[in-house]
Amino acid sequence: MNATQTQTRAPIEFWLDFASGYAYFAALEIEALAERHGRSVVWRPFTLGAAFKITGAQGLSRTPLKSEYARHDWQRLARLKGVAFKLPERHPKVGLPAIRAFYHLERKDPHAAARLAKHIITGYFRDDLDTDDPHAIARLASVLGFDHEMMLAGMIDPEIKLIARQHGEAAVARGVFGSPWIFVDGEPFWGSDRLPMVDRWLAQGAW
Amino acid sequence: MNATQTQTRAPIEFWLDFASGYAYFAALEIEALAERHGRSVVWRPFTLGAAFKITGAQGLSRTPLKSEYARHDWQRLARLKGVAFKLPERHPKVGLPAIRAFYHLERKDPHAAARLAKHIITGYFRDDLDTDDPHAIARLASVLGFDHEMMLAGMIDPEIKLIARQHGEAAVARGVFGSPWIFVDGEPFWGSDRLPMVDRWLAQGAW
Repeated sequence: MNATQTQTRAPIEFWLDFASGYAYFAALEIEALAERHGRSVVWRPFTLGAAFKITGAQGLSRTPLKSEYARHDWQRLARLKGVAFKLPERHPKVGLPAIRAFYHLERKDPHAAARLAKHIITGYFRDDLDTDDPHAIARLASVLGFDHEMMLAGMIDPEIKLIARQHGEAAVARGVFGSPWIFVDGEPFWGSDRLPMVDRWLAQGAW
Repeated sequence: MNATQTQTRAPIEFWLDFASGYAYFAALEIEALAERHGRSVVWRPFTLGAAFKITGAQGLSRTPLKSEYARHDWQRLARLKGVAFKLPERHPKVGLPAIRAFYHLERKDPHAAARLAKHIITGYFRDDLDTDDPHAIARLASVLGFDHEMMLAGMIDPEIKLIARQHGEAAVARGVFGSPWIFVDGEPFWGSDRLPMVDRWLAQGAW
């Protein structure tokens, strides 16, 4: 796969709610998967809340029976994949500051924003990162080399707030109702369970 | 795998709502999967309605956004697996007569009941079998060699109705909220996406 081919193929869209356990597992694999097929990944954090208003659903972690199953399944997946997994004490969080921080940084440097997004979701599911706290997000960004004050300013910038909200609304308008959600050339795939199918779709195209 | 080993291993429980598209795909594979590990399959038809009352969810096919995605995903899965798939004109159906027919037959012959269950769900998703019509279910049973009148009588037998309802209530009490649902030695797995994990669990046991 040479650079020209990579550039001519549309990136994969990776939509994630930062409090989605299944998005965490997918986040650990999506870039290697895309790279195998000469694709890049556009990270698209959003909050599932807007979709839930339409579907009438609640988040997994707020739904009886499903919540208990998901917690069990996440631990089982973590052991299977050999990765850390620890639910934050207060879960789920909406994480608007984290989402806004991403879109703020993305305007300056998309690659840096992707790196931040991955650190946010791994921080949430390993180290109890508080995605609702702008200062916690700014500190994480600092560690990654981004200016602390610049990040804090971005999270309260009305224009950034609007952009973040518009991304979420656009997702719902395109039928996104769950996390993680992947678009490959417009084809929708819901859930970390669908990664093998995404892999196959990328390899052979539509079937 | 010899017969003795097979008998000493607990059967896999396969819970399915007859109007569940994902249960259809799992139904086509579950027996071969179990057999590879020297296990048998106990079919457990139920209606998801009781679980939905607890989780507050609706069936996939009654949920905005999810319904459109599921229809697309089922067609995509059918093409991938090379199997027929056609939604009934009136979908989803509750299918109480079909569920009752199963438990009626199971008291006489569990293997026959399993065969009936598989024919019911493939009939529903290929030939518009009306699972709400006792006569349609009895006709299908006749084709499989079971007495038409005996089947009709079973579907209106109060004791059978009770048994069918109790199975559904027991499922919810055990945390079942979706279809298909598989128990392997008590370990719960939700969804046809989980079949590869079930396969691995059977091969290596708990991890």
